Amino acid sequence: MVTPELNGGDVGVGVGGGSFDFQRYLSARADAVNDALDRAMPRGFPERLCESMRYSVLAGGKRVRPVLALAACELVGGDAAAATPVACAVEMIHTMSLIHDDMPCMDDDALRRGRPSNHVAFGEFTALLAGDALHALAFEHVARGCGDHGVPADRTLRAVAELGSASGTGGVAAGQVADKESEGLPVSLAMLEYIHVHKTARLLEAAAVSGAIVGGGADAEVERVRRYARCVGLLFQVVDDVLDMTSTSEQLGKTAGKDVEADKATYPKLLGVDKAREYAADLLAMAEAELDGFDAERAAPLRHLARFIAYRQH
Amino acid sequence: MVTPELNGGDVGVGVGGGSFDFQRYLSARADAVNDALDRAMPRGFPERLCESMRYSVLAGGKRVRPVLALAACELVGGDAAAATPVACAVEMIHTMSLIHDDMPCMDDDALRRGRPSNHVAFGEFTALLAGDALHALAFEHVARGCGDHGVPADRTLRAVAELGSASGTGGVAAGQVADKESEGLPVSLAMLEYIHVHKTARLLEAAAVSGAIVGGGADAEVERVRRYARCVGLLFQVVDDVLDMTSTSEQLGKTAGKDVEADKATYPKLLGVDKAREYAADLLAMAEAELDGFDAERAAPLRHLARFIAYRQH
Repeated sequence: MVTPELNGGDVGVGVGGGSFDFQRYLSARADAVNDALDRAMPRGFPERLCESMRYSVLAGGKRVRPVLALAACELVGGDAAAATPVACAVEMIHTMSLIHDDMPCMDDDALRRGRPSNHVAFGEFTALLAGDALHALAFEHVARGCGDHGVPADRTLRAVAELGSASGTGGVAAGQVADKESEGLPVSLAMLEYIHVHKTARLLEAAAVSGAIVGGGADAEVERVRRYARCVGLLFQVVDDVLDMTSTSEQLGKTAGKDVEADKATYPKLLGVDKAREYAADLLAMAEAELDGFDAERAAPLRHLARFIAYRQH
Repeated sequence: MVTPELNGGDVGVGVGGGSFDFQRYLSARADAVNDALDRAMPRGFPERLCESMRYSVLAGGKRVRPVLALAACELVGGDAAAATPVACAVEMIHTMSLIHDDMPCMDDDALRRGRPSNHVAFGEFTALLAGDALHALAFEHVARGCGDHGVPADRTLRAVAELGSASGTGGVAAGQVADKESEGLPVSLAMLEYIHVHKTARLLEAAAVSGAIVGGGADAEVERVRRYARCVGLLFQVVDDVLDMTSTSEQLGKTAGKDVEADKATYPKLLGVDKAREYAADLLAMAEAELDGFDAERAAPLRHLARFIAYRQH
């Protein structure tokens, strides 16, 4: 059972038979990703565009998606460094989707990660183009960067395809359209699942799968990682929905109660908060079950990551 | 000297020592690209998103960029089919940039290719996301498609990087920001060149370069293609500027006089129409000179393509 009283720190011991320190792992990996993102972000002309891109990408955040990529790479025996380009690319794509999602023609949200949204800080046309530039950079970064870490070109190409699918009609863009079209309408549980799977889960899945691919995972391992990440991705959104309903804006660092206000379909709205939490617990159990086939020590980061997502407070 | 009285048909003979029929070549290659684009565009759910993508991508247009990719591939001895995925990807990226460029927060243009702009036909949020989905599909399409034509993965990755650079801060997005920021301000010739090179020329360059790469061109050949295409790309924009000033909306299939109305910097505005035409003629000569090192017959399509761009009426 997932309860909001718990937090990630409470599940940091006793998994995988050892004393794995998840908070330390998460912090170290997030730091590595932040350094890599800082290096990957362009500086120079046009300054306004570069500043706008840096503003949103380097605004912090939990870096769940990139850490998922690194941990999946390590799970299949790869070196985390090999997955750094795909980890950064996933965060660039995610940031692009947030920038565009916050724009007036989408959710019209003025607050993101506790700061003014990109279009509020830099104006609409720069925000639109900063998103586009981040989107392009994501693919360029993977195409140029993976080879430096000895990743064979065919694996890198599979990662590019995976990320492209997750960002477009196979994922985020499709989910966003379905989400916007559903506002104010009665929404079935099937449609709600479609929206969450595409808008959120698919990119988390692509993060993990890309990490496993560049790490050299066998096809069967990659598919297990995919099923794990699909559950974790949906779990992430279900918890997000619950937090939007039960937290304050200050706790979240973004506008709380936004979904209710916009009359958006959410799990707690359709199922009630308790049932939504039960569903989250089921997803967590399913995700963890997919890790049982892997070495316990190597699987510890992904096991803790799933729990961290389930028990997080913001 | 480039004069608008001439057109593409007038330069269709006598090049490469033979009777190369450029109009037939262009038409056949454009048909092949249109078929491939039609197959590449998603159908299904969300229908509104897929229809919006198809609406803009399959709206016609001269297909100059994709034909450039196919012709560059053939120039270096490749089979045009190998370049079809990059040709389609370039057109998807180009269409994304047009959809976003037409939006109210950018150029606010209601007319494109003689029809309502995407956001006018489908609404703003769908237009924004259709652009994003096309952008993602471009990279996915290259990553998945090139291997089917026997293109080695390392070449395909170089094409992905080239296209990413041309779409982001190394190209279109940077050019669009610089262009928007310059509206209503005095603009130097250097800044005007920056805008045109990035906003327009860079993607035409990437089209040709990607085609040459997947076609198996040697590094020196690829660089000659790059220089050719850089000139052709700038030529394309200079002619575009001249046509905007000298044509009607009916002739162009888009709003004429738009640049003047928006107080945008253009070559004819800075240099006058005659000097702008002289510059176009210089660029054409430089582009053609880069082709002299190739077999005349193989170079004929790119030679005629440069002239077609120089002498076009819309």
